[in-house]
Amino acid sequence: MFEMRERACLGRVGRLRTSHGVVETPALMPVVNPSNLLISPEELRRRFRIEILMTNAYIIYRSRFRDQVLERGIHHILDFEGPIMSDSGAFQQHVYGRVDVSNEEIVKFQTAMGSDLGAVLDIFSEPDSRWRECEEGVRETLSRCEEAVAWKGEMGLVGTVQGGLFSDLRTKCARSLSQIDLRVQAIGGVVPLMEGYRFADLVEVIIASKRGLRPDRPVHLFGAGHPITFGLAVLLGCDLFDSAAYAKYAYDGRMITRWGTTRVKNLRYVSCSCPACFDATPKDLKDDVKRLAEHNLHVSLQELEELKQAIHEGSLWEHVERRSRAHPRLLEALKTLRKHVDFLERYEKLSDGSLFYAGPESMWRPVAWRFRRRVLERYRPPEAESLLILQEARRPYSRTYASLLRDLSLKANAHAVVRSVLGPVPIELDEVYPVAQSVIPRELDVEALEASEVFLRQFLRLGHFSFGVLWEGDKTIAELASKAKGPSSLDMDMARARAVADYQFGSGASDALLGGEVELVKSKKKGKIRNVYVDSEHVLSLRAGDGLYTLKMAGGRRLHATFGPPRLRVVVNEESAPFNREGRNAFAKFVVECDDSIRPWEEVLVVDESDDLLAVGRAIMNREEMMAFQQGVAVKVREGSALS
Amino acid sequence: MFEMRERACLGRVGRLRTSHGVVETPALMPVVNPSNLLISPEELRRRFRIEILMTNAYIIYRSRFRDQVLERGIHHILDFEGPIMSDSGAFQQHVYGRVDVSNEEIVKFQTAMGSDLGAVLDIFSEPDSRWRECEEGVRETLSRCEEAVAWKGEMGLVGTVQGGLFSDLRTKCARSLSQIDLRVQAIGGVVPLMEGYRFADLVEVIIASKRGLRPDRPVHLFGAGHPITFGLAVLLGCDLFDSAAYAKYAYDGRMITRWGTTRVKNLRYVSCSCPACFDATPKDLKDDVKRLAEHNLHVSLQELEELKQAIHEGSLWEHVERRSRAHPRLLEALKTLRKHVDFLERYEKLSDGSLFYAGPESMWRPVAWRFRRRVLERYRPPEAESLLILQEARRPYSRTYASLLRDLSLKANAHAVVRSVLGPVPIELDEVYPVAQSVIPRELDVEALEASEVFLRQFLRLGHFSFGVLWEGDKTIAELASKAKGPSSLDMDMARARAVADYQFGSGASDALLGGEVELVKSKKKGKIRNVYVDSEHVLSLRAGDGLYTLKMAGGRRLHATFGPPRLRVVVNEESAPFNREGRNAFAKFVVECDDSIRPWEEVLVVDESDDLLAVGRAIMNREEMMAFQQGVAVKVREGSALS
Repeated sequence: MFEMRERACLGRVGRLRTSHGVVETPALMPVVNPSNLLISPEELRRRFRIEILMTNAYIIYRSRFRDQVLERGIHHILDFEGPIMSDSGAFQQHVYGRVDVSNEEIVKFQTAMGSDLGAVLDIFSEPDSRWRECEEGVRETLSRCEEAVAWKGEMGLVGTVQGGLFSDLRTKCARSLSQIDLRVQAIGGVVPLMEGYRFADLVEVIIASKRGLRPDRPVHLFGAGHPITFGLAVLLGCDLFDSAAYAKYAYDGRMITRWGTTRVKNLRYVSCSCPACFDATPKDLKDDVKRLAEHNLHVSLQELEELKQAIHEGSLWEHVERRSRAHPRLLEALKTLRKHVDFLERYEKLSDGSLFYAGPESMWRPVAWRFRRRVLERYRPPEAESLLILQEARRPYSRTYASLLRDLSLKANAHAVVRSVLGPVPIELDEVYPVAQSVIPRELDVEALEASEVFLRQFLRLGHFSFGVLWEGDKTIAELASKAKGPSSLDMDMARARAVADYQFGSGASDALLGGEVELVKSKKKGKIRNVYVDSEHVLSLRAGDGLYTLKMAGGRRLHATFGPPRLRVVVNEESAPFNREGRNAFAKFVVECDDSIRPWEEVLVVDESDDLLAVGRAIMNREEMMAFQQGVAVKVREGSALS
Repeated sequence: MFEMRERACLGRVGRLRTSHGVVETPALMPVVNPSNLLISPEELRRRFRIEILMTNAYIIYRSRFRDQVLERGIHHILDFEGPIMSDSGAFQQHVYGRVDVSNEEIVKFQTAMGSDLGAVLDIFSEPDSRWRECEEGVRETLSRCEEAVAWKGEMGLVGTVQGGLFSDLRTKCARSLSQIDLRVQAIGGVVPLMEGYRFADLVEVIIASKRGLRPDRPVHLFGAGHPITFGLAVLLGCDLFDSAAYAKYAYDGRMITRWGTTRVKNLRYVSCSCPACFDATPKDLKDDVKRLAEHNLHVSLQELEELKQAIHEGSLWEHVERRSRAHPRLLEALKTLRKHVDFLERYEKLSDGSLFYAGPESMWRPVAWRFRRRVLERYRPPEAESLLILQEARRPYSRTYASLLRDLSLKANAHAVVRSVLGPVPIELDEVYPVAQSVIPRELDVEALEASEVFLRQFLRLGHFSFGVLWEGDKTIAELASKAKGPSSLDMDMARARAVADYQFGSGASDALLGGEVELVKSKKKGKIRNVYVDSEHVLSLRAGDGLYTLKMAGGRRLHATFGPPRLRVVVNEESAPFNREGRNAFAKFVVECDDSIRPWEEVLVVDESDDLLAVGRAIMNREEMMAFQQGVAVKVREGSALS
């Protein structure tokens, strides 16, 4: 059983339940070999707080431990009471060309030794294999996974996506695995990519796999033990990692850092303050393999903690963009994400944290792409004779500057749009996420400037305006604005209320929500819209944090009446309906349908199968997730129809 | 006394000698106030290995400790036997508008309390002050520094560069300070810049100051206690930092990270494994100010250790480029460095570590700029009918690819130049630093592509060739090359030997060094030039690491005979000459002149004042440093003339 607790893009903090306890993910499973325990499982648990181990069933199968393990169980032999996952020998097949065991033998062996999670003997696809070869491997892998179900007993089965570098095969293999009774879905055949620094290929493989994998199972990235790849892999939805690297690197005199690897012999300063390093000299690390292995493990675990905190605080993208500067080939991988922005965007929260510009790639973060797309598709400008296109202020987009622009556009009876690296920002949307939450340097990369011009042209091509005027530099604007004393700001407030509604809920939402006698209640301090009443009903609240609406039941009724299914709907079954009507959350396992355009954190309508409105609330998942998960909340209900 | 031990750009690992012991720099001085010791000096020394403390003499002067400190000395009151630096109250003047003490009082007080290093009461220049005001402040600061010399006794005096945001004033102030008997040179007036994230301004201030400061004294950056700025500051030659931040932030519930600051109340995961954090829950850090302060100090100290290691292993630029992704305003600061590349390049080693492309800024790293400049100024192509301009290989620049190119250019009787983001690379220079040591992603930023085009045009404008042909894509090249079986590769080897000589030692060096019967001794394994004999004398060795020459005495004699002074010379006085002639190193204090174009790690000629050649060796410093330092080696001598 797997439950998603927090999220950012495809990344998630989750909880995986096994018969030996619960594991928080993303998690690193140190690989232990009973014949050679550099750091004992007991130490791993006590000193490193390791919750789950990985061991290689094939190696045990061929060792003197085979009978012991069968007799007393793997947990006893390893002296570890937590969950244990075992591998099948597929990797040894890659290394040695063959293995001396059948799928049946090794799966039954894993079941017998008491693994919590045991791997099918999949066919390792080499990155340079041809399509035909990979396709055969995938077919064999799938048939082995299918047959293994019969032998698994209580053990959770681990099936692995193969398919080499062929995205079609990866996705197909993943889709088929999703139909098989597996506990963990793994991505395999990637070690050669990591060894060769082929991180862009790795990203393609993970994304192609994730496109086909059902989202309610944890995903294990086989053989990823170096923290340099953790950030990208977590962002793309990998939940489990296994590391033999901490020990292997130590035996080889290499110190793992979050930026790469350093040979201990080149170490003059121990620039780490982990428990293994704090009192150590470079010589201590050079002479003591175990100490070095401990460091390697600490730094790997710390990276996962940082990633979990980044997911929690909404800074995962910033984290990954920084880490991508560890190596040019990682930067290459980061740039590759742009190709898949439409897929990534489906998993991205409606709003989350800040947007720190770190380079031209930042313009292609899914939230920036979504902003541009929604402006193009959903936004309609208020009536105006002409368009003022304003350069982004040299200094960070400021309140004063924004109010100058508003005054100015009122005076000139022109509509104002600010050209920014996120795309053109209609002045009424300047507080919407991620515009107001972005931090952009004053000096921009040429690529960013050119792209912002392209984005603007896409917007102008919509033909909202008969002609446009370009004002450059804030001095001129300030001068003009000082003379322009607009009338009241009522019109601009209404324009904002309408623009945000269309942006958030789709074209036509402003008419649905704001048709009638509108009263905008503003904050006393800053004079900003906080609540929207229509015909004396409280329809919407506007959040200060992300400039988007919270939907009230009255607003939900208006949207429900205007928009037909499936728009904005999450459909629950009759078992769930009475609870939601009373204001209780809607759980994923009761969801029967969901609007495909709903994104996590979106305000939605909960309806029953007859499209009766049950509640309004915030979606926690997108459609794919709601349909798959059997655990967790799909919609956090705010108001049920029975109570209002 | 200050000695430079290792270096990278303006950054250095140094040793500062005081009457209470030696301090390794870059160093962080925790600020301690005897009235409020959150972490005691004894703990700082024992548990944090702090070598030097900072305390505020003005605050003590106005406290109940005043008489005690005068009676028993500051070391006794703080219970700290290492060096102590004291501040004068200049910062309080900034905070409160005035201070109730005169320069004479506070300097004498610091002398009397036994400070190892004591600050003059300088005039804090506010970043938004006008030129006139700053200029007056600078004048007053300088006159106070001058008068303070009389009162300093045994204490090392700390004088501070002021001048607001005016580079001319900063440089002028720094030049004047360099003439005064100071032990430490500080840069002041920068706290408001750091508080306001005005990192680009901070960079301008540091560079303008460094342009005027003599390089043989440590530079203290006043008030820089957050590790986010350490990387840039160290790269630009700051050696000392003081931190009240570790405690201040802790009292305010803020956790310092190398990427910024997190409120402990937002902490869900303690993503740190320092001694303060390792066993801690978020609640522990929230409830225990001292523990949080300890973390803040650990993370700050660890950043300095990482920086020292980065200087040691030649990855300081990589470190700084990564860290600049912590905040868009830091990225802004990084981009600002490009304006000062000519100054930075003077301090950059001839070769050092790798060059990892992290963004368009990487093309403007001083070593890349130097490569382009030397190619433009020093390189002359061998005779060829035309020019083949080759696109950089899509895959990382490989040996196979390079040899294809060579064969091809021989066959076509054309000279080949590869267009790269570092600039055009003549094929004979493709193993010269930083070309072969660079790692460039396959997918490039538009800005990088455009710049590489501009660099190429600058090269073509030199008119070396009557016409050029552009070949794109490596497939075509591979096809052509497969047909092209060039004759022997002898010509290409000679061309390489000549091109590297001119590149490294200047135009004409190839004629000087290689005039005569040349024998190229190549490595057996890879067939690369290793040693160059001319007329049976061993003239040069070609290093595998950076593709540049090591100069032998015979080569030195040839360069000396051909090039007149000051080219390639380091002139030492008669006290030094006999030792250098015997092959002993040349120390900076004996250097009387030095070729302005010599860079650290350059191969040079050591001569006496009559221009007699004494030795050949590797420069450790540039001209400014050789002329200023009284400590340390200026030229590591390889061969003395007496011995060969």
